[in-house]
Amino acid sequence: MTKKDTLISFNKILTAPEDAKISIFDRGFLFGDSVYEVTLTVNKEIIFIKEHLDRLNKSANAIAMISQFSQEEIREEILKIQSILGFDRMYFRIILTRGEGEIGLDPDLATKQNLIIIGKSLSEYPTKWYDQGVEVIIADTLRNPRKAMDPNIKSGNYLNNVLAMIEAKKRNAFDAIMLNHEGNVAEGTTNNIWMVKDKIVSTPPLKAGLLEGITRAKILHFESLNYKVIEQDIAPSQILEADEAFFTSSTKEIVPIVKIDDKVIGNGKPGLITKEIHQKYKEIAYLK
Amino acid sequence: MTKKDTLISFNKILTAPEDAKISIFDRGFLFGDSVYEVTLTVNKEIIFIKEHLDRLNKSANAIAMISQFSQEEIREEILKIQSILGFDRMYFRIILTRGEGEIGLDPDLATKQNLIIIGKSLSEYPTKWYDQGVEVIIADTLRNPRKAMDPNIKSGNYLNNVLAMIEAKKRNAFDAIMLNHEGNVAEGTTNNIWMVKDKIVSTPPLKAGLLEGITRAKILHFESLNYKVIEQDIAPSQILEADEAFFTSSTKEIVPIVKIDDKVIGNGKPGLITKEIHQKYKEIAYLK
Repeated sequence: MTKKDTLISFNKILTAPEDAKISIFDRGFLFGDSVYEVTLTVNKEIIFIKEHLDRLNKSANAIAMISQFSQEEIREEILKIQSILGFDRMYFRIILTRGEGEIGLDPDLATKQNLIIIGKSLSEYPTKWYDQGVEVIIADTLRNPRKAMDPNIKSGNYLNNVLAMIEAKKRNAFDAIMLNHEGNVAEGTTNNIWMVKDKIVSTPPLKAGLLEGITRAKILHFESLNYKVIEQDIAPSQILEADEAFFTSSTKEIVPIVKIDDKVIGNGKPGLITKEIHQKYKEIAYLK
Repeated sequence: MTKKDTLISFNKILTAPEDAKISIFDRGFLFGDSVYEVTLTVNKEIIFIKEHLDRLNKSANAIAMISQFSQEEIREEILKIQSILGFDRMYFRIILTRGEGEIGLDPDLATKQNLIIIGKSLSEYPTKWYDQGVEVIIADTLRNPRKAMDPNIKSGNYLNNVLAMIEAKKRNAFDAIMLNHEGNVAEGTTNNIWMVKDKIVSTPPLKAGLLEGITRAKILHFESLNYKVIEQDIAPSQILEADEAFFTSSTKEIVPIVKIDDKVIGNGKPGLITKEIHQKYKEIAYLK
């Protein structure tokens, strides 16, 4: 969070991180009444920007917000920050709030949205995660159900996930797998979850209550593989018996999971299919 | 939100509302990782302050936060604002966030909490609400379940309730009743819900998934009434057939409900027991 590696676009005005402050009457602060996206640039190119901006609008519309900023405006702000800071590899968080107003749940109390884009340099993640895999837990905290607060809305309401992350930290785990109210696997705290069993690669369907991940969608559409990729309900007992397991996220890409609770997955090392999928993902994302 | 009728205590520094701004790296803004309380002063006395400050700590503890501000400090800030602004009747919102830090779900990324207290003059609510009662709907959006995001944690995650309020507004209703995943009545968007049938006054139990309201608790402990007050599961069909129904909240006190969806409750006028409860509540709260 220093001046040198971070820059903010606040309603299209470039601002140093220490000066980037929002009114306490902003509904994003009061109620989490905001939506957001995270993407990165690799070799100075924004990864799947169209998909992220489409999803930002989709999240907004799901809470009855029509973005007051065009995709082109947002894209330009990202490129502006990218060009000023100049790092090859950068993290971008785009936050769109319903704006400021008198305090009350009624969304019409605010009329002018706030757009905040945080850009900062992003180091490579520890190679250990990818070479050795990570250990995770299954959280007791369930994921919010679709009929209450749909996990497919990427909003400012992330305390549910923070609670699962607190459980993970207590048990020295990298992250937590969250279950839905039917007892099936939903997603990680900020990622989608996958398993491989008998050369079938699977991930829970949207109806399990999860964010429709962009990396997830790319993998579901991989072609000419020597394994099947499908969506299916996954019980905890199934993933514990998987040959391989992994997380996917836009920032961390594909992270192999080698232990869940106290159960070693496969041979306790990142799986071959997991590695193959990661390589293939990199190729479509930025190794062009 | 003008200077004259609103004043903010920002980490114990008095600030004009237009200058009260928080870092966009505050977890309250990023994730709704904060807890809050709302109370009022009537005749310059803070209503049930001890109960509100106890509940603030209870909410904080439920998300693994230990308040870095004492109850006495918070109380003093409220009294300071009260004394400067000098209105007989004031609204106070106390917000405690986990603080600022690098972006990530891990709560240990922030170490210094932010305390924001908003104080402002509060006009009397429209007498119409109390004399004629209000019309509400039963929302399609369900309340977050306890095992995911417990409604008894009064946190910065209120988008679930905003969604129900959006439904209410669309249908020209005052507010929405939210159901739990068992299909029973849970609570309103910012209030508890009650019904009266055959002189039995009832409200859903905590296990239905709701905030343990302070007004609710006071009514449950009323003595020497000529009607019973109990906690019980309430099905939508039951409340639709009630003799009387009402909301309770710390700010709005007791609001009679005269219509739910298209069903008139009782004779379509505020019920006698509802009025009696409101009068009794005022007596213990501030008509001493």
